[in-house]
Amino acid sequence: MAVVLTTRVEAVLGAWDAGTFVTQRVEAVEVDFGGIPGDRHHGLTRPAGSREPMYPRGTPIRNRRQLSAVSVEECAAIATGLGLDAVLPEWLGANLLLEGLPELTRLPAGARLLFPGGAGLVCEGENRPCRHPGEVLAALHPLHPEREALPVRFVQVARGRRGIVLSVERPGRIAQGDRVRIWLPRS
Amino acid sequence: MAVVLTTRVEAVLGAWDAGTFVTQRVEAVEVDFGGIPGDRHHGLTRPAGSREPMYPRGTPIRNRRQLSAVSVEECAAIATGLGLDAVLPEWLGANLLLEGLPELTRLPAGARLLFPGGAGLVCEGENRPCRHPGEVLAALHPLHPEREALPVRFVQVARGRRGIVLSVERPGRIAQGDRVRIWLPRS
Repeated sequence: MAVVLTTRVEAVLGAWDAGTFVTQRVEAVEVDFGGIPGDRHHGLTRPAGSREPMYPRGTPIRNRRQLSAVSVEECAAIATGLGLDAVLPEWLGANLLLEGLPELTRLPAGARLLFPGGAGLVCEGENRPCRHPGEVLAALHPLHPEREALPVRFVQVARGRRGIVLSVERPGRIAQGDRVRIWLPRS
Repeated sequence: MAVVLTTRVEAVLGAWDAGTFVTQRVEAVEVDFGGIPGDRHHGLTRPAGSREPMYPRGTPIRNRRQLSAVSVEECAAIATGLGLDAVLPEWLGANLLLEGLPELTRLPAGARLLFPGGAGLVCEGENRPCRHPGEVLAALHPLHPEREALPVRFVQVARGRRGIVLSVERPGRIAQGDRVRIWLPRS
């Protein structure tokens, strides 16, 4: 029998504006095999980038980074580490804010997130932090005493806490307030 | 820096005959985003089955079982455990026979197999054994002293040794004799 955890969808978000990775909240989305239609990261394939140094840059690879998820608890820890009141999922470009799974980032690849609306997502692994969210944090906090250092500090503080990337295994609906069942891969 | 292992492709195989899962050797294949064109398990999606009890049977899900791989060393261990001279990858329906990675089955989900012809495969996890290969073994060994028990014995003996399932991350060529680099996911 598989181990089953549960978590709750606190927010559903998408990057609908092509000019920025910052996301905006919606009540619900209907995912297809490419992710969230209209979102910046939607697609069955995408060009290989700096996160895939094993492939020539720009070569088409399967899109395993369709959605990203962060946890309420880890966002709070990042905020504390940076001396901020809060770090919002919008600023991290997250598509899902989950509550009740404090160590979301440690969820193993292959874990399935199963939503009551039928959608099934697969954890593709940890989302390693880059500087961009720290640049957003710096722009949003002009009076922060260490404002200039926030991009670098973000990468340090968010390591191991920045959540996971996911791909769609089964299309369906994902809504704010959903109870999510998580099946861990057998070991 | 990622940890990199290496292995060698001893054989490339496909199930070209729709009537059986038993595979046949070829010199090379050209994988696309669905797997090996013409092979029984090729497809971007497939119907959910008994291995996915979290989904309604028959519902379309992404095909994460496009290819399967076994190791020379684990096939030999299964053969020993069953009192056979050899267990061939054909009888297990394997698409790749790899040499030099004795614990292939323990490769973590998310590990990448990178081929000199450009193909990149992602480990989707352990291939848990079912009875069918044991039925093939029983049919092929009519004089085996425990012939009737081979399907059940196979499941017992092959557990943790039956190799892995994979999906295509980057299309390309896979050929007999290839040296394969394996990138482990960061932990």
